[in-house]
Amino acid sequence: MTKRFQVVGIGNAMVDVLSHCDDDFLVTNSVEKGIMQLIDMDRAVDLYSRVGPSKEISGGSAANTIAGIAQLKGRTAYVGKVKDDQLGAIFAHDLRAQGAVYETVLAPKGSDAETGRCIVLVTPDGERSMNTYLGWSEYLGPNDIDAAMMAEAEWIFLEGYRFDGPESHAAFAKAIAATRGAGGRVSITLSDPFCIERHREAFAKMLREDVDLLFANRAEIKSMYQTEDFDAALSAAAADVAVVVCTDSENGAYIIQGGDRWHIPAVPTTVVDATGAGDLFAGAFLWGLTTGYELETCGRMACLAASEVISHIGARPEADLAALFRQHGLL
Amino acid sequence: MTKRFQVVGIGNAMVDVLSHCDDDFLVTNSVEKGIMQLIDMDRAVDLYSRVGPSKEISGGSAANTIAGIAQLKGRTAYVGKVKDDQLGAIFAHDLRAQGAVYETVLAPKGSDAETGRCIVLVTPDGERSMNTYLGWSEYLGPNDIDAAMMAEAEWIFLEGYRFDGPESHAAFAKAIAATRGAGGRVSITLSDPFCIERHREAFAKMLREDVDLLFANRAEIKSMYQTEDFDAALSAAAADVAVVVCTDSENGAYIIQGGDRWHIPAVPTTVVDATGAGDLFAGAFLWGLTTGYELETCGRMACLAASEVISHIGARPEADLAALFRQHGLL
Repeated sequence: MTKRFQVVGIGNAMVDVLSHCDDDFLVTNSVEKGIMQLIDMDRAVDLYSRVGPSKEISGGSAANTIAGIAQLKGRTAYVGKVKDDQLGAIFAHDLRAQGAVYETVLAPKGSDAETGRCIVLVTPDGERSMNTYLGWSEYLGPNDIDAAMMAEAEWIFLEGYRFDGPESHAAFAKAIAATRGAGGRVSITLSDPFCIERHREAFAKMLREDVDLLFANRAEIKSMYQTEDFDAALSAAAADVAVVVCTDSENGAYIIQGGDRWHIPAVPTTVVDATGAGDLFAGAFLWGLTTGYELETCGRMACLAASEVISHIGARPEADLAALFRQHGLL
Repeated sequence: MTKRFQVVGIGNAMVDVLSHCDDDFLVTNSVEKGIMQLIDMDRAVDLYSRVGPSKEISGGSAANTIAGIAQLKGRTAYVGKVKDDQLGAIFAHDLRAQGAVYETVLAPKGSDAETGRCIVLVTPDGERSMNTYLGWSEYLGPNDIDAAMMAEAEWIFLEGYRFDGPESHAAFAKAIAATRGAGGRVSITLSDPFCIERHREAFAKMLREDVDLLFANRAEIKSMYQTEDFDAALSAAAADVAVVVCTDSENGAYIIQGGDRWHIPAVPTTVVDATGAGDLFAGAFLWGLTTGYELETCGRMACLAASEVISHIGARPEADLAALFRQHGLL
């Protein structure tokens, strides 16, 4: 039976504020390169006052994934919390305009917190260093999870960054129970090595008990399994999760399912802005999987989508992904 | 004596909401191609609900001009009115971060109107069709003009679009008097052929009496002088204004000063998004002029800056304009 949604994503809703800077700027302003760091509103205001002219483009890791699936005309929805403010309206518009279902989960009126935003600093090498003010996205809790919607999902996709919210674990537990209870499956992205360090036990328990498909990159999977040995980390993950998909930058990606293992080469491109590479990788992969393609083909689609998104500023797809897949003989 | 500012710009402050669409979308949604049309908040909300995923990038015609001058390290300031909301903060940040002085002229608290925005629809040919909700920018009046700041300007730069506001003419009159009273000079851009039709008499009087340098394009100057004969329009303008600078799309630009006339060829490029071409043209020209370059060199700088801004999405400069000028032997 076809369910209403191929994929429902749950994540931190935010608008990216994208600026270019040099490496010295990161050092001077104590921004750690290449990772996501959480900042409060005061730091957000101060840092924003120092960065150059910016572009505002909707972001949020899982939201980017869902935008990719929607652009491919997958049946998809997103759950994340914004404020009833201009940035919240921008976020909601951009997801819906892409074709995703987004029933805005608004913050209570009168709250001081605003819609989340991420000050993304892009260095000349294309690497992005993210400074995230979670705002209202942080407070997504079980009351914001519609069990009926989860039951309509073939897959849910959980954003690891969400482990940082106070009610995040309860929200995930509710979503997982509703999804699995209706025969749906669970995918998750580890999101960030430092986020894993903050919530290692919760991640580990979920991987062992609830996750059918794991997305990670090399640094994340090593952090998760506390080893410097990448192959050992992959094997440990494969013992926990039915399908493991791990990206490895310009080396492409690995897919492991039981005793089978595939290596998918990356699609070479000029890196303009790495923001969203992993997100669109996951989006294309999940779209392929839920459309009925083999894992290896899903991996090739995923690498193509990642190469598209890093070739321009912003974490949402710009080229027609289906046309790109056709061009490469995948559709 | 060097004044504090080379150029002070006065314009409608707004953030651009940039989307791609095809020509059918323009027809279906009654958007007239290639021009600026004023819309109210209801139409803005309705149209926004129909357009695809967007990027928010600070805009505003004169503000783009001033951003160009600031990026060239010219001493420059901007006057325009925003609301104390998130889009207003974005607009203010982007001008200041570029190096311009911007003393935010805020709307009164509690007003319904928001910071102005322009829904820019970019068709595959790179042409932009602009749908402008003026918001608070419309209400910039003489009380918002700081005569002392105008007296510190070598040049002021007036945005023709501003003729649409209820107190715009009085605001311009105050700015012109303060500038000229302190020995400064006045430049203006005609902005749009339909804006000219709405305010022909006011434009004509200002050109005859107050303007030292006129920026226009082919359609605007023909509309201004109500003739289909481009050369006749140029001559009529030259009779009114000491220096006339008129762009002519891929044919480049004409400069007329008294009996002298120069033609500056355009710099060929792939048009990605025409938004801001005229604005950056004026910015580079005014920077060159106030830095001491010959009119012809100013024109070459202007054509280079225009070609830079149309080669990417958004109306603010991205490449280093000074480096571009050096590369072409102009600095």
